[in-house]
Amino acid sequence: MVRVVVVYDIHDDEKRLRLAAKLKSIGLSRIQRSAFTGKLDSQRLKDLYRICEYFASDDRDIIHVFTLCGYDWSRRRAFGTYREVEQNVVIF
Amino acid sequence: MVRVVVVYDIHDDEKRLRLAAKLKSIGLSRIQRSAFTGKLDSQRLKDLYRICEYFASDDRDIIHVFTLCGYDWSRRRAFGTYREVEQNVVIF
Repeated sequence: MVRVVVVYDIHDDEKRLRLAAKLKSIGLSRIQRSAFTGKLDSQRLKDLYRICEYFASDDRDIIHVFTLCGYDWSRRRAFGTYREVEQNVVIF
Repeated sequence: MVRVVVVYDIHDDEKRLRLAAKLKSIGLSRIQRSAFTGKLDSQRLKDLYRICEYFASDDRDIIHVFTLCGYDWSRRRAFGTYREVEQNVVIF
């Protein structure tokens, strides 16, 4: 399994919502409005890259995917709190 | 030097602009609307954490700072393109 952080700027609102739903469907959790994280196996990582290719189609859209080793993940710092509007709240 | 990725949700527009200017002032470059990256020495990293503490004061604001080793940074993937409106364009 590998830890990923996905960060995106998607211009179109409806498309942005669909991307968020897709990221949740492969097991990622939201940590900010436009950032998700989670641990993926190699197949799911390929799915993620395919999803990103599809959703970054408009030239105003950009998505970054960072894969973090355990040590880098442990060094992350969060300032402030994120309150997911839906149920699954990610507590840091 | 350490490679950082800073990702933020800042509710207030004027405050968000000031944070972006601060991040640029310590040597970071924008890679997306609300994401910056760059390499910082230990003093600048402390400055960054202090800046994040200050700017994540409103309970709707959140900032994540990830520090990436060279290997993790080399594995990053960018989908789509980011066109900085100002001069310093970051080419991936």
